[in-house]
Amino acid sequence: MATTAEPGQTTTIEARGKPTIAKGWGTDAADRPLRPMEFERRALRPDDVAIRITYAGICHSDLHQCRNDWHNSVYPVIPGHEIIGEVTAFGPEVTKYKVGDLVAVGTIVDADLTCRECIAGWEQFCLSGSIYTYNGVDKIDGTITKGGYSDHIVVREHFVFRMPEKLDPSKAAPLLCAGITTWSPLRQYPEHVGPGKEVAVAGLGGLGHLGVKFAAALGARVTMITTSPEKAADARELGAHDVIISRNEDEIAAAANRFHFILDTIPVAHPIDPYLALLRRGGRMVIVGAIEPLPSIHGGSLIMGNKALGGSGVGGVPETQEMLEFCAEHGILPDIETVAMNQVNEAYERLLKNDVRYRFVIDMSRGL
Amino acid sequence: MATTAEPGQTTTIEARGKPTIAKGWGTDAADRPLRPMEFERRALRPDDVAIRITYAGICHSDLHQCRNDWHNSVYPVIPGHEIIGEVTAFGPEVTKYKVGDLVAVGTIVDADLTCRECIAGWEQFCLSGSIYTYNGVDKIDGTITKGGYSDHIVVREHFVFRMPEKLDPSKAAPLLCAGITTWSPLRQYPEHVGPGKEVAVAGLGGLGHLGVKFAAALGARVTMITTSPEKAADARELGAHDVIISRNEDEIAAAANRFHFILDTIPVAHPIDPYLALLRRGGRMVIVGAIEPLPSIHGGSLIMGNKALGGSGVGGVPETQEMLEFCAEHGILPDIETVAMNQVNEAYERLLKNDVRYRFVIDMSRGL
Repeated sequence: MATTAEPGQTTTIEARGKPTIAKGWGTDAADRPLRPMEFERRALRPDDVAIRITYAGICHSDLHQCRNDWHNSVYPVIPGHEIIGEVTAFGPEVTKYKVGDLVAVGTIVDADLTCRECIAGWEQFCLSGSIYTYNGVDKIDGTITKGGYSDHIVVREHFVFRMPEKLDPSKAAPLLCAGITTWSPLRQYPEHVGPGKEVAVAGLGGLGHLGVKFAAALGARVTMITTSPEKAADARELGAHDVIISRNEDEIAAAANRFHFILDTIPVAHPIDPYLALLRRGGRMVIVGAIEPLPSIHGGSLIMGNKALGGSGVGGVPETQEMLEFCAEHGILPDIETVAMNQVNEAYERLLKNDVRYRFVIDMSRGL
Repeated sequence: MATTAEPGQTTTIEARGKPTIAKGWGTDAADRPLRPMEFERRALRPDDVAIRITYAGICHSDLHQCRNDWHNSVYPVIPGHEIIGEVTAFGPEVTKYKVGDLVAVGTIVDADLTCRECIAGWEQFCLSGSIYTYNGVDKIDGTITKGGYSDHIVVREHFVFRMPEKLDPSKAAPLLCAGITTWSPLRQYPEHVGPGKEVAVAGLGGLGHLGVKFAAALGARVTMITTSPEKAADARELGAHDVIISRNEDEIAAAANRFHFILDTIPVAHPIDPYLALLRRGGRMVIVGAIEPLPSIHGGSLIMGNKALGGSGVGGVPETQEMLEFCAEHGILPDIETVAMNQVNEAYERLLKNDVRYRFVIDMSRGL
């Protein structure tokens, strides 16, 4: 059933007519560190692609899931939804990829592809429910999906992205979650983001640093809003034209009515009204991080000035591919620190202290 | 200085080179009923228009201001910002109006007209501050502005609207506040409101009933969301294609992911998350009534589905004139009950009990 290579092409891995054993790292319980594990990857379905994983980004949500912060973890958890790799085999219905292709996988690996949202390219909001890359339930066999902290993965072709040649695969992984999460909102509001527009990015972390790069590359005048004066120089290096220290009341007051758009990457609940005051008439602010109950917003903060507060969740398949092409064209890559697989627990501890500029990437060739 | 008529035209009122005495109704204190009062209207400035008032709508905010609910009332308060009348005189720089023209005045009577918001036609958000039709401070002489519950008013030409001939002046007054307040948000979101779009209007009162008429006339499929089953028939008569009773959990659950747009006219703070759940992916909800702290919104209600919650405050001069033309063209008028000026206190009591379908209009020829 499964095809391992195109006619005339050789492949180094065995035929995938049956399940394979993957090596990876995962957790057994909320209070346990990650450890090496072996687990099964399914036999290739007709539209599946098998991928040898070369790099996997560490997302803050990996840590949340390992520690069951969202009360939905099913153990063992094998995290990782920022995946770069190489095609090693594919099912007979696969048309887009061949063995050796450099590819990527992001936060979701399945959806019905027939509902209005899937048809419109918003698979992450599939009306039947999209399937997360890990800690999700496979639609066909009911197993719990396992993520990218492993040597290989099997993914439905539709959810595999082509990596542009110009994009350094050792650095690109965070684009698949942090990247698309910040790219999508900037593209959803084209009247508010672009040349001649004042765009602020609130929060300088894994998401925020890519938000600055994207907004600047899209032609906007970009201001970083951060609590930390020591991040000002960093922000300018990333492409910010201006920096506002949010604890400086004078700077905040001076920025009233200024921004067309604020991309809010702050990962926890925080007061919203002070940011809405920085929007100009008709301005839009979009939160991408704070999946929590927000402090009360005053109706007048929205009504006075016809403003709006939106949210945005990762991105669909077409716009993720579009983002990768844009990054290749504009030379955009995340700022990362590479770690070996067996350094993941140390990386998590540093992540908790925000001690990373700005994202960890696991090199799967080391320490697995 | 002031001109009372165009060359060759006669006018029945005396020249306006000096202040005039107006008759009206107002309040002396938060706990006092309205009573007849006399007060001064300014001498015509070069760009002023004098208007004999024929009808004035009663807006809920009139009641708030009379009773000092917003802690900013300066007594005596002469309310009224939904004004219909006839031009009786004009200053030498006035170019758009002549004596006898049927005109209207809304919620604001001055702004700087030089800032970026005024230039863009959003005078209500003038960066120097727009001046309210009553209980505002005149920019030139510092007096407190006095509204439409009176026999005449003097208004800067820019803030006077031309009443289309087809529009019944005895019914049109509420368009100047309730009308523009619901029209503006529907026009600000053209991708969400129009043919093929599912639009809900939450709250059936003075604002909501016009929201239904506008949304239907703009081609949307309109659903009224109301707490009151007894309003269902009314809503359909106003043009709603469907009605959802918000206290019916099954109806609410069945409407999840349905609407492109929700116009929220509910005048008090209320939970927002249940309404956000009714929006489809990319949907927009706009509040126009609840100028109060809102209950906490969950970040996930916005993030899941790329939704947004906006606000909208009345409207600018160009879009107010546009709305009046649209109403004339589509035969849209508020549903009103006419009262005499000396019935205003009784009308207020009924307003407090929501006992009006759907707006009171004072006939200034009676009971002044």
